[in-house]
Amino acid sequence: MNRTVFIEALQHELQHLQYGQHPPELYDPIQYIMSLGGKRLRPLLTLMAAYIFTDDWQKAVRPALAVEVFHNFTLMHDDIMDRAPLRRGQLTVHEKWNDNIAILSGDVMLVKAHELFLNVDPDKLRLVLSRFTRTAAEVCEGQQMDMNFETRWDVTEAEYIEMIRLKTSVLLGYALELGGMIAGADEETTRLLYEGGVNIGIGFQLKDDLLDVYGDPAKFGKQVGGDIIANKKTFLLIEALQQAQGSLRDELNNWLSQTDFDKTEKVQAITALYDQLAIRQLTETRINDYFARGFTCFDQVVANPERKKLLVQFARQLVERES
Amino acid sequence: MNRTVFIEALQHELQHLQYGQHPPELYDPIQYIMSLGGKRLRPLLTLMAAYIFTDDWQKAVRPALAVEVFHNFTLMHDDIMDRAPLRRGQLTVHEKWNDNIAILSGDVMLVKAHELFLNVDPDKLRLVLSRFTRTAAEVCEGQQMDMNFETRWDVTEAEYIEMIRLKTSVLLGYALELGGMIAGADEETTRLLYEGGVNIGIGFQLKDDLLDVYGDPAKFGKQVGGDIIANKKTFLLIEALQQAQGSLRDELNNWLSQTDFDKTEKVQAITALYDQLAIRQLTETRINDYFARGFTCFDQVVANPERKKLLVQFARQLVERES
Repeated sequence: MNRTVFIEALQHELQHLQYGQHPPELYDPIQYIMSLGGKRLRPLLTLMAAYIFTDDWQKAVRPALAVEVFHNFTLMHDDIMDRAPLRRGQLTVHEKWNDNIAILSGDVMLVKAHELFLNVDPDKLRLVLSRFTRTAAEVCEGQQMDMNFETRWDVTEAEYIEMIRLKTSVLLGYALELGGMIAGADEETTRLLYEGGVNIGIGFQLKDDLLDVYGDPAKFGKQVGGDIIANKKTFLLIEALQQAQGSLRDELNNWLSQTDFDKTEKVQAITALYDQLAIRQLTETRINDYFARGFTCFDQVVANPERKKLLVQFARQLVERES
Repeated sequence: MNRTVFIEALQHELQHLQYGQHPPELYDPIQYIMSLGGKRLRPLLTLMAAYIFTDDWQKAVRPALAVEVFHNFTLMHDDIMDRAPLRRGQLTVHEKWNDNIAILSGDVMLVKAHELFLNVDPDKLRLVLSRFTRTAAEVCEGQQMDMNFETRWDVTEAEYIEMIRLKTSVLLGYALELGGMIAGADEETTRLLYEGGVNIGIGFQLKDDLLDVYGDPAKFGKQVGGDIIANKKTFLLIEALQQAQGSLRDELNNWLSQTDFDKTEKVQAITALYDQLAIRQLTETRINDYFARGFTCFDQVVANPERKKLLVQFARQLVERES
């Protein structure tokens, strides 16, 4: 067994998913955003988790895609709220159509995500959906916290970690837990899968923040320093805001309040501030800590090591990414 | 048994529903819109339908509120799309907070609606949810059709009926069907409840259009002619646009294109046009036809007549309303 088999199963089912037809203004945006690609990370995690406990991992394909449809629903609505012009290099739905269509198509996607769970075995449906609705509400809570943070300059590390846990990590945890639930794993095992996913997810998001500043420009896909230029409240900026005193604090505030500046100069100056405050080391410590907690959870999952290896290796690659 | 018992059971459960706490920007708007009141028509229909077949109608209370939460979710998002300033005489959520909060709170409401179904008996959960997700998607389709109609002047009667069927009637049908499903009614019976609800719902919506023009100002709660002033594409206007020829057509088009006009004069002129085209009679014929179809469905439901009476009498009152 290798990862390609799972990817192909997902692609095949994705191509055959029918969301609806009429009116086209409602359903074309769903086809559009689902066709923009992406790594299909969440459904892959579901299939890998299911495969650990059953040969019949195919029955997890549609529920896995429920998670993917839900994830894309959050992107469609978040893009409206963030006024984002582009998603994966293409126009966002609210730009290509309009806000109302993006709101309503997103609503239907959220309904369709629930619908895709309905072929789960009847004896597992209630648990699968009750964990899903909890997770889905948490993702919305994370998005609201993220929006609230935009106008706050006193966000604490704990608040930031809680925000990324809710906004991005619980869904990764749920994707893994779902695979376990569908494959009939016991409660302690699905809990470990969930906790493993959440911790890896938090580490992954912190690494995203770190790479924006300290990533290798040759390997990093985006412009290094993009978050700095945009004053984005990353883990690094939040730590700097909490720690900087005296003249460092003044310099930081000065850069944050500038509206007309040389981008390269700002990136260099803020990076130098981070260096002086040892933010890089602190961030790396946190990242390694969350990754370690995640892998400890996976270690505790009692299962055929050969089957578990596929998931653990995949998680290792996620953790070691440079872009 | 009387209706008050159902209303009190719904109010009691509504007051104790916990949607969530943090962040407050996400959950306060849900409490707010749910507290604005309304007739609680849909959950009442669910309880009345359940009561026909079981003494244990209480187990339908939470699923009935799932329908009410879903309905209020559609109001919250529709109000954004329609730029509506008021809902039940109070500020809409996007006006009291902002668009982003109304989008995201609505999203959580849609999740919570699904969650409220999860205490349905496990052997019925899949059917209840699969019928719900179908209905919820249809309601969105109806809203999209309604928005599409705003910029069209060639909407046919059939298209208009299909729009109101999807946007408002299928949920009334589902509310009744849900009560039947939870109470263990057979498939033919739940189908009749659904069809009955859909037909009464279409008649109800057409009567709404009719009352706006021909309602008794002393009994009608809103300003008579409000739809005419706003060029709203009601059943009456759509029929007039389809039927008016020659000078009548010119006069109609002229009034529709005016931006500066005397409101009373416009209402009188368009009403006179409707009179000349016998739109009132046509509308009343259609209304009576849909109501008759609805009651025929209820007649065919095999059940204790004493228990059925509560629902049928309630539907009669809906049908005979003057406001």
